[in-house]
Amino acid sequence: MHVDVAALGELLLGRWKDVRLASRELMKRDAFHRIPGQSMDEHRERVLGQLKLLVDERTVLRAFPQRLGGLDDHGGNLAQFEEIAIADPSLQIKSGVQWGLFAAAIMHLGTEYHHDTFLPGAMSLAVPGAFAMTETGHGSDVASIGTTATYDPERDEFVIDTPFRAAWKDYLGNAALHGQAAVVFAQLIVGGVNHGVHALYVPIRDGKDFLPGIGGDDDGLKGGLNGIDNGRLHFTGVRVPRTNLLNRYGDVDANGVYTSSIASPGRRFFTMIGTLVQGRVSLDGAAVIASKLALKIAITYGSERRQFADGPNGEEIVLLDYQRHQRRLITRLATTYAMAFAHERLLETFHAVFSGEKATDADRQELETLAAALKSFSTWSALDILQESREACGGAGFLAENRLTQLRQDLDIYVTFEGDNNVLLQLVAKRLLADYAKGFKNADAAAIAGLVAAQVGEVAINRSGLRSFVQSVADFGSRARSIGFVRGPAAQRQLLTDRVHTMVAEIAGRLKGVAQLPTQEAAALFNANQNELIEAAYAHAELLEWEAFTDAVDRIADPGTKQVLTWLRDLFGFTLIEKHAAWYLINGRLSTARAVAITDYIDDRLLPRLRAHALDLVDAFGFAPEHLRAPIASGAEKQRQDEARAYYADLRASGKAPAAE
Amino acid sequence: MHVDVAALGELLLGRWKDVRLASRELMKRDAFHRIPGQSMDEHRERVLGQLKLLVDERTVLRAFPQRLGGLDDHGGNLAQFEEIAIADPSLQIKSGVQWGLFAAAIMHLGTEYHHDTFLPGAMSLAVPGAFAMTETGHGSDVASIGTTATYDPERDEFVIDTPFRAAWKDYLGNAALHGQAAVVFAQLIVGGVNHGVHALYVPIRDGKDFLPGIGGDDDGLKGGLNGIDNGRLHFTGVRVPRTNLLNRYGDVDANGVYTSSIASPGRRFFTMIGTLVQGRVSLDGAAVIASKLALKIAITYGSERRQFADGPNGEEIVLLDYQRHQRRLITRLATTYAMAFAHERLLETFHAVFSGEKATDADRQELETLAAALKSFSTWSALDILQESREACGGAGFLAENRLTQLRQDLDIYVTFEGDNNVLLQLVAKRLLADYAKGFKNADAAAIAGLVAAQVGEVAINRSGLRSFVQSVADFGSRARSIGFVRGPAAQRQLLTDRVHTMVAEIAGRLKGVAQLPTQEAAALFNANQNELIEAAYAHAELLEWEAFTDAVDRIADPGTKQVLTWLRDLFGFTLIEKHAAWYLINGRLSTARAVAITDYIDDRLLPRLRAHALDLVDAFGFAPEHLRAPIASGAEKQRQDEARAYYADLRASGKAPAAE
Repeated sequence: MHVDVAALGELLLGRWKDVRLASRELMKRDAFHRIPGQSMDEHRERVLGQLKLLVDERTVLRAFPQRLGGLDDHGGNLAQFEEIAIADPSLQIKSGVQWGLFAAAIMHLGTEYHHDTFLPGAMSLAVPGAFAMTETGHGSDVASIGTTATYDPERDEFVIDTPFRAAWKDYLGNAALHGQAAVVFAQLIVGGVNHGVHALYVPIRDGKDFLPGIGGDDDGLKGGLNGIDNGRLHFTGVRVPRTNLLNRYGDVDANGVYTSSIASPGRRFFTMIGTLVQGRVSLDGAAVIASKLALKIAITYGSERRQFADGPNGEEIVLLDYQRHQRRLITRLATTYAMAFAHERLLETFHAVFSGEKATDADRQELETLAAALKSFSTWSALDILQESREACGGAGFLAENRLTQLRQDLDIYVTFEGDNNVLLQLVAKRLLADYAKGFKNADAAAIAGLVAAQVGEVAINRSGLRSFVQSVADFGSRARSIGFVRGPAAQRQLLTDRVHTMVAEIAGRLKGVAQLPTQEAAALFNANQNELIEAAYAHAELLEWEAFTDAVDRIADPGTKQVLTWLRDLFGFTLIEKHAAWYLINGRLSTARAVAITDYIDDRLLPRLRAHALDLVDAFGFAPEHLRAPIASGAEKQRQDEARAYYADLRASGKAPAAE
Repeated sequence: MHVDVAALGELLLGRWKDVRLASRELMKRDAFHRIPGQSMDEHRERVLGQLKLLVDERTVLRAFPQRLGGLDDHGGNLAQFEEIAIADPSLQIKSGVQWGLFAAAIMHLGTEYHHDTFLPGAMSLAVPGAFAMTETGHGSDVASIGTTATYDPERDEFVIDTPFRAAWKDYLGNAALHGQAAVVFAQLIVGGVNHGVHALYVPIRDGKDFLPGIGGDDDGLKGGLNGIDNGRLHFTGVRVPRTNLLNRYGDVDANGVYTSSIASPGRRFFTMIGTLVQGRVSLDGAAVIASKLALKIAITYGSERRQFADGPNGEEIVLLDYQRHQRRLITRLATTYAMAFAHERLLETFHAVFSGEKATDADRQELETLAAALKSFSTWSALDILQESREACGGAGFLAENRLTQLRQDLDIYVTFEGDNNVLLQLVAKRLLADYAKGFKNADAAAIAGLVAAQVGEVAINRSGLRSFVQSVADFGSRARSIGFVRGPAAQRQLLTDRVHTMVAEIAGRLKGVAQLPTQEAAALFNANQNELIEAAYAHAELLEWEAFTDAVDRIADPGTKQVLTWLRDLFGFTLIEKHAAWYLINGRLSTARAVAITDYIDDRLLPRLRAHALDLVDAFGFAPEHLRAPIASGAEKQRQDEARAYYADLRASGKAPAAE
């Protein structure tokens, strides 16, 4: 069995291969690398300087209009952007603040005047900018922010105010030091009517000093990403011309009349906020990159590091030959491959919507749901993968030079920014419920379960457990038969899909009539199901990851590569099913024999098979030494181990080895 | 229902209450607090200075002999030591290096000459010292270290050598900068015979310069604990007088003859290494402290922070009223209480052994197993608790000023140092297997299962699933009946105990005859069961935690406190059973109805009940503001929320509020 590492590497690079490779090539330069141990102040200045270097390379400007020097290339832009995480996540996120949030808001929420007037400075970094949406008091609930922009018809200006401390803008990159302007989100009040949250372009500093009416604060040291100058801003009677309103979705004319192309304030809000989806898409991609780096480091080390004399002739064996070590790392390697393939699909969906190829409301909603689900899955998984990799490298993993701790510290915030994962998953769940309601308006949980059961064939739904009893009899005494039923992709898909459908149907049954309840009671009923709702959304994310992995395997031509990737996909599917075995048993989808067989199959078959290809699978990530920069992944450990073994061999040969007591 | 917070606080402080309170009082001082954002160099110097302050207070010297100014108080010593983590884990661990490792090795492995000659300098910090055991090539497998100490009969000296790069001593606190001496572990070679690992007292520096033959390296920046100067050491023909051998368990006399009071080299090694157990005990305690701090911060914030208008009249409700938030934090509060009570039991066991009250070989082994199990459980749990607390506080949780990220970064290494958790759990598992083998020499897995089943009453073992079928019929249609069977502590104990016993018995069955196999085959058979072995050991740790919690609840007199703590213990027990529900279902210990009832009982009953007492339960930890030092746990959030709500109320009252569109 042989893996075609080069071809697999191509598959992983995906549609924007050339852009990715160019970005990676750039990220080999020392000038972009993080210097461990730099103080916060030094790190912030270094990253600002790196941003200027990026402007010179112009790669970061791909998404912008061609007439302003960009390439109108949305997917490619995120592909190059994600790879920046290899050099330093702070550099990635500060670029994201400048071009993915500040400049992108001007582009997506503004119109031609704003593009002509404000975009060039934002693109060239002549005007470093902040994206002033989040407030100290409101992060996830953007609709409830407190900042106001009140139209003053006498002077034809907007007046921006921060009414209380909780309405200070907070956690904004570029706000503490470098920002000269900001896109400020505020409740737009015109003639005594609040039209909801809109965005305005607001100059905030002249050099180092705040402009009149503006104040702020430095968020100071953070748990990671300290190359970014996050800070706070507040506004007191700050005036900007009426035309500084980014007016694509809502405008005020010279007569002080508000108009919008979107009649519903709710839909208008979600349309404006929807342009933020690219942040989530890119975080999903960055989580993939960090996970790949971590596993390349930990699996390289695990295949060189020796400990305990459990091998032939009392030789020490390498860590990766231990079952537990395989359980820890190879299962996570499977997750990383799933994440990589799922991200590629997300990126293509994103590109189709943002390029206008597929940009209906339904397409946008689909993209937002997909991004919310995958971003939650991948950012949490990345933290888990980084931590397990760190632990698998022991004390060496804790040294900053080996990068695992620093990457984990930087990625920590990814699980709560650009949408707290727990909140994002509730959005996914609501979408699943809405789809369910559309499909089965009058069906209750039992009816939908019956409908699903009718579609599913062998691994069927059976609430009474009778089906699992039949499974038990059919499989009796034979582990091979037990695993045979679930080894194919159809059965895995069925089990994963069925779980999502059934959970959603059950919750829908419990929430029946919620729309008729008074708000507070409805909220209470929703709340009583909140945990399970989030679990259902997460199950949906798992299914999406699995499906993307399976589609990718189907596209592989080389038989050896296809076989190894099929095992890896099976490992991913089986660990998901194993994790949720209680649910499958309770709901009669798996017999106990089959549940046991899955665990045995993972430990006895899949892990040993995949262990033989683990190095190939991480080599396919295609990182150069300049990307890794981790001494323990450089071959130094093998050299040390070889030297030690040669020393003892020579000593034995010399006859001078001391005798054991 | 009312919790007597003061009495509960006393219970948590435990037997060494006064020592703990004194240490906490000391840790209120600014001089001991970490300054966020200090560079590594500044932080290292600050912590060294803090160590000198601790000497002045003499609290850190409690464990040492009275004749040298100590108090011979082992349990009290660890109690004071653990509380130092409140100020800065770097300070705690650097103290641990100096007094818990370097000086303690002189005390426990040396004899009167060493106590008189070397202890005073180690105690007073006149001689900062390193504990030179771990090598770059060998961490967990100490018996295989490469450093040698060869006796030279001509000069009556030991010659210490590092034979190859992997044998460099590594990760040693005090080695990079401050250490003037080290306790060096080396293979002791006398007259061509290797007597195994022994420890020697070795001067390493004169001021800032290494002594001849000694070299080293700085480990540099780490993922956390950067107040400690970890580094590497190597030795080339370094000579020390014969009497520098710490000779309590093995000595070389003036004629060059090796003697030991312990005939078996294996037992001798484990006896010497056994003195290290106090490190594990104290890490268990530090993990408890950090978890308490994290939950005090996150639960305070969660009960003040408002988000989303789901409350009466569209008011925003506090985060802790959301079911998911309760699931995230209150379950971890239950874990923290279990850890606190289990640690107190461990500390008492440790004190009994080290004070000589109960110091047989069996007592020592019991202590080592207990420490290995609890340290693994609590250090992993602490990382989980710190991370969930960070996420539950969103962006505010990511700010260094709120301490959660820094604590997590510092505690990261706790899961792999002083024994990698995965290795420690294998020691626990081997002990469980040995006990099993002792009790049932000729029984196979089925026989032991039968024996256990005979003892257990209602929640019995039934491999065919028949029992769960009977449960299903008995409970049919009644959730109250389903939960009724498992709500009492006897049933929880039974379920948790049974799982450990059965897992051990099954593994024992599979390992039957392993002792008769050739080494390599035996290792392979062991390896094929490694993952499950570790899971069994972890199940044992969970049981120990649950038992300690239950014993503590039994000692509570106040009815309200007892009721609330009983709910909290039930929550801990039920979340463990829920986590392992698949195992219980597969092994016929729970019917599906009962498994479902447990989840419902957690969500619908226990969490809402405990939510009402969550603030009391974290107040009982007894932290002062000087201990917390987290702005988000200071009441500032409530003030901001109140101000915002007052603003809107006034605006509505004034009639000037803008109308919604």
